[in-house]
Amino acid sequence: MFFASDNSGPVPQEILDALTEANTGYTFGYGAEPLMEEVQHLIRDMFEAPSASVYLTATGTAANALALATLVDPFDTVFCSPVAHIEEDECNAPEFYTGGAKLTLVGDSDRMTPDSLTRAIESQGNRGVHGPQRGAVSITQVTEMGNVYTLADLQALCDVAKSYGVPVHLDGARFANAVVALGCSPADMTWKRGVDVAVFGGTKNGLMGVEAVVFFDAEQADTFELRRKRGGHLFSKHRYLSAQMAGYLRNDLWHRLARQANAKCQKVYDGLRAVDDVTILNDVTANMIFFTAPRAFHQHLQGHGARYYVTGGDLDNGDPQSGLTGRIVCDWSCPDDALDSFLGLLKTP
Amino acid sequence: MFFASDNSGPVPQEILDALTEANTGYTFGYGAEPLMEEVQHLIRDMFEAPSASVYLTATGTAANALALATLVDPFDTVFCSPVAHIEEDECNAPEFYTGGAKLTLVGDSDRMTPDSLTRAIESQGNRGVHGPQRGAVSITQVTEMGNVYTLADLQALCDVAKSYGVPVHLDGARFANAVVALGCSPADMTWKRGVDVAVFGGTKNGLMGVEAVVFFDAEQADTFELRRKRGGHLFSKHRYLSAQMAGYLRNDLWHRLARQANAKCQKVYDGLRAVDDVTILNDVTANMIFFTAPRAFHQHLQGHGARYYVTGGDLDNGDPQSGLTGRIVCDWSCPDDALDSFLGLLKTP
Amino acid sequence: MFFASDNSGPVPQEILDALTEANTGYTFGYGAEPLMEEVQHLIRDMFEAPSASVYLTATGTAANALALATLVDPFDTVFCSPVAHIEEDECNAPEFYTGGAKLTLVGDSDRMTPDSLTRAIESQGNRGVHGPQRGAVSITQVTEMGNVYTLADLQALCDVAKSYGVPVHLDGARFANAVVALGCSPADMTWKRGVDVAVFGGTKNGLMGVEAVVFFDAEQADTFELRRKRGGHLFSKHRYLSAQMAGYLRNDLWHRLARQANAKCQKVYDGLRAVDDVTILNDVTANMIFFTAPRAFHQHLQGHGARYYVTGGDLDNGDPQSGLTGRIVCDWSCPDDALDSFLGLLKTP
Amino acid sequence: MFFASDNSGPVPQEILDALTEANTGYTFGYGAEPLMEEVQHLIRDMFEAPSASVYLTATGTAANALALATLVDPFDTVFCSPVAHIEEDECNAPEFYTGGAKLTLVGDSDRMTPDSLTRAIESQGNRGVHGPQRGAVSITQVTEMGNVYTLADLQALCDVAKSYGVPVHLDGARFANAVVALGCSPADMTWKRGVDVAVFGGTKNGLMGVEAVVFFDAEQADTFELRRKRGGHLFSKHRYLSAQMAGYLRNDLWHRLARQANAKCQKVYDGLRAVDDVTILNDVTANMIFFTAPRAFHQHLQGHGARYYVTGGDLDNGDPQSGLTGRIVCDWSCPDDALDSFLGLLKTP
Repeated sequence: MFFASDNSGPVPQEILDALTEANTGYTFGYGAEPLMEEVQHLIRDMFEAPSASVYLTATGTAANALALATLVDPFDTVFCSPVAHIEEDECNAPEFYTGGAKLTLVGDSDRMTPDSLTRAIESQGNRGVHGPQRGAVSITQVTEMGNVYTLADLQALCDVAKSYGVPVHLDGARFANAVVALGCSPADMTWKRGVDVAVFGGTKNGLMGVEAVVFFDAEQADTFELRRKRGGHLFSKHRYLSAQMAGYLRNDLWHRLARQANAKCQKVYDGLRAVDDVTILNDVTANMIFFTAPRAFHQHLQGHGARYYVTGGDLDNGDPQSGLTGRIVCDWSCPDDALDSFLGLLKTP
Repeated sequence: MFFASDNSGPVPQEILDALTEANTGYTFGYGAEPLMEEVQHLIRDMFEAPSASVYLTATGTAANALALATLVDPFDTVFCSPVAHIEEDECNAPEFYTGGAKLTLVGDSDRMTPDSLTRAIESQGNRGVHGPQRGAVSITQVTEMGNVYTLADLQALCDVAKSYGVPVHLDGARFANAVVALGCSPADMTWKRGVDVAVFGGTKNGLMGVEAVVFFDAEQADTFELRRKRGGHLFSKHRYLSAQMAGYLRNDLWHRLARQANAKCQKVYDGLRAVDDVTILNDVTANMIFFTAPRAFHQHLQGHGARYYVTGGDLDNGDPQSGLTGRIVCDWSCPDDALDSFLGLLKTP
Repeated sequence: MFFASDNSGPVPQEILDALTEANTGYTFGYGAEPLMEEVQHLIRDMFEAPSASVYLTATGTAANALALATLVDPFDTVFCSPVAHIEEDECNAPEFYTGGAKLTLVGDSDRMTPDSLTRAIESQGNRGVHGPQRGAVSITQVTEMGNVYTLADLQALCDVAKSYGVPVHLDGARFANAVVALGCSPADMTWKRGVDVAVFGGTKNGLMGVEAVVFFDAEQADTFELRRKRGGHLFSKHRYLSAQMAGYLRNDLWHRLARQANAKCQKVYDGLRAVDDVTILNDVTANMIFFTAPRAFHQHLQGHGARYYVTGGDLDNGDPQSGLTGRIVCDWSCPDDALDSFLGLLKTP
Repeated sequence: MFFASDNSGPVPQEILDALTEANTGYTFGYGAEPLMEEVQHLIRDMFEAPSASVYLTATGTAANALALATLVDPFDTVFCSPVAHIEEDECNAPEFYTGGAKLTLVGDSDRMTPDSLTRAIESQGNRGVHGPQRGAVSITQVTEMGNVYTLADLQALCDVAKSYGVPVHLDGARFANAVVALGCSPADMTWKRGVDVAVFGGTKNGLMGVEAVVFFDAEQADTFELRRKRGGHLFSKHRYLSAQMAGYLRNDLWHRLARQANAKCQKVYDGLRAVDDVTILNDVTANMIFFTAPRAFHQHLQGHGARYYVTGGDLDNGDPQSGLTGRIVCDWSCPDDALDSFLGLLKTP
């Protein structure tokens, strides 16, 4: 009953097979291998973006930081949510890769709004050379709190960014889960809304460690390759990244894995919201649930082997009735019997 | 007949097996997985260094740049050969990771000597705050020109470094090939000589992309983990790095693969040096050969399908007798029939 | 009637005299000149800190950024007010000099409190290597909104910082104005409270461009000199910085100038608060006043030649009764007749 | 008898007067003061470059590093002499300001030649993303060894740079001395040859600390102002930089001061070369002399109060006849009686 993270499970057999298939003889490296051509072709097709520039990195932090560094100057600032991964969980990688750009936090929740974004942008870039310049807007989809921006939400945020001439980065660590949740196409969720560069995540959805960085306007990708090499993120045996991504794209495996993850999450959600004293904190349409419940309830679940993060207090000590927040994340590989066991626990507190 | 590089071949079955074996259920990530404990144990044993700090990265550039950034300050300089990988082939990654430290080039060949190193160190760090400070010495073993420093060579270079209080970094992209060439132990080639941090390469010797960074004095590793995360080089599904490295270490696979590569190279070497008009440029004890031969000879080989880099002029146009330089690299996977074909070509120019 | 800034006026004759006096013959440079010894002596005396390390820079941005870079690592964060100069007005200089450290904003006003600081510190440094580490607390005295922390306020903030093992930086661009406002000694306002490094500003209080950076624990100043040189902030003809600072320190000129500025500000304050419809927004004890007043009132003042910044709307267009915020800053040089004219205007709206 | 440096003397009365004259009332800062308009006008006139962008900094290191950072990307390299100030005497400031660009050393002397420059440029930028890209050529005029490139030399170097599409930076710390030595105009020595950005030095030729950075194509100056602010090099009371530079430019004071310095140096040169056992090492046309002479001769001079740098061995101990290298630098302020005394010493060894 492991619901702590979607980066802790195994990869599907298709990915191992793709690696094995690629593991034959000599080939060019550094992205010049034929497999990377296939990847580029598949991604351009998938995004309906025939002239997009496509690059692979092995980690999401690298993908985000390199994408942002390509968009912004060191004297700029990047607008993002205060709980964005780039702000909280990348140990200053964006600042490092951009050469010292700043992050300006937008609003006080995981979801930026046109209003909060406008206020944030207005607060910067208006002091001439004295303050940072407006560099980029970074949107996280699915957000760190498990919410999914609607297409209208994305459009509105991109519109604000464009009205200030600021490019838009989409951190899509859970890109597939969002696409499935919205029932839309990748193009719908990106360039059709105004996104300039999207990180199409693979690691959280079944790969060992591969993310695609997609620039819809190839000109904006200008310095990406040099920055990737300089960051030590260009793989000599790049075929093993390409192979994984190709396996992920072929037959829409990425979509199927995300459907699995989201469907499992819906089952948990249905179970959880039926429990008294449980309050669901986010709109559960992707693969994450945030909820508050009494300490005793969390103790019950975890005592029976459920694994997920609890915040807001000490799980083991304190008033049994006081509320703590739990975070449940489902990945594609979550075994059905674990799911059933967990649902069973919900009914017998 | 592919002899262009040792980062273009496949990985051995043992590595695929190790990945498959590791691909089961949930596990901690970020290096906290049990497999990483095994890796640390195996590396400490192999290096006879029970308190060493051991980290994995996916690329050699990351390994080198992070190791150097951990050793030196931004106002320092790193002493290295003018053809060192960190100088020529990392697109300023060392400068990036150190925050702008300089590289000071030592002598004019691939092999630093105690004299050339002393002169270089004396040329820096003697202008108070005006010039860069002495930060580290970086030794490449095997060198970029295929030479292997003897243990006495290494001792002498480390002694010079130590006499100035400067730590030593060993770029061991071809660490295993050097150990096999010298018939020594990993400890002999590193801390017993005075090396502070060694990059134990895996990628060029049979892995998809894994290098180990080994700090013999754990205190010097102080900031490595934060720098690795900040560089986007900490893998969430770190088990897939650990699994490869574990497979590489178990049963001394790393040593066996290097023995294969070096042995194949010796065969090519024996063939080449028997050819009139061929001049061998390096001491061939590891897996690389640099040689000059008439243009016509290179045309003969390449025309029959041999693949290796030629420099010093246009392969296709020019005086058939003028000399061009070839670089032959053998990896563990080089097929015997390719080898035989190539040796055959040498006899029928 | 210029009240827009305290960095727009002339320097007192004593400073020109000090420059002239220093302008004779050859002398060592780079801070090795005898005048710098005098400066160090005077500052150590003034701060009752006989072993402090003292350095000069020509701008406050350099002083702050270099001080912070000396205290923190690139993977750290600095805690400061959201309106701190280092956040709003230095175009990412702190991020640049620290190599990409982050600024974490504390609370939502110019004054940090023990509570808001504790919350901010607790929000960082608790995610292992994933998030930034706790680097330093930066306190601005006088704050950007013209308020002066009491000695008890400073003690409480430093106590919080120390309880987390985090060093404290004091941005003292208006150090002298604060000391005068509090009627305390420089030591009272710094190391006796727990400040590790203070910027003792000169530029806003009568110098052409000199600030002193004072490390109370010389060991913490370790890398300052190299960072200053690397930043291009070490002056060859350093005597002209030393001469200004010496002139500023001799006979407590710095204290006299600040007394003048603060006294002039009190007169304006007395005039302003007597005006109906004027609301004073800060505790006016130093040399700045923030106030709201109807647009028509601002138009009256500015129409008669008063110069100061107005925010919150268009000065020229809009409802005459709607409130706009004005910022008045007095410097030592403000002519008495300008002051009288302004006070006269207040009485005849 | 001080000949150790041209940054150790006083400033001429005209500069003090300019400061005094500027020291009146309130004025805009940050370069928006009217005096800066005058400076821009005077420099554009002087350079016959009506659309040049002109900025002031207080140190030469800042001027060079900011100019280079504006021209090159972090993954680039800058070509310069191995004894260039940017390589030897700026504590990695160019690396810092460029975000980690590299310096590639050209040839083995102070003077780059078209051949050595071509070889250096050819050695870089030819490894795709693996190596650094070609960023800029930096020429030092007067060189660090006291030589002056002729206009033909400069033309040839710029031609090489342009043929590779690489912009040219001129480090003109001794710009005025070179112009006087060549008897040419500032335009002759810069944009007419192909220089893109010139540092027009003031500090070594009579200012307290001001250098002008002149971009002949204003578009290339794009990010300079933001970089200057971010580096902490934008002065609030900028008028005191403008005043010095205005005083330096009015009535061609800069040219007169350099004529004085060069003329004094010629007298020393005439005296020195008449001495047996003295070998002059450079073409003495500006204000520096490098020469070898027996240790005993140096002891004689220094024992009688002459001050200049000696390298190549211990001045006090060793064979009286063995040769040591001396460096003589004359500045505008060198007193005639000191000059006469020194010349007298040369005649009585």
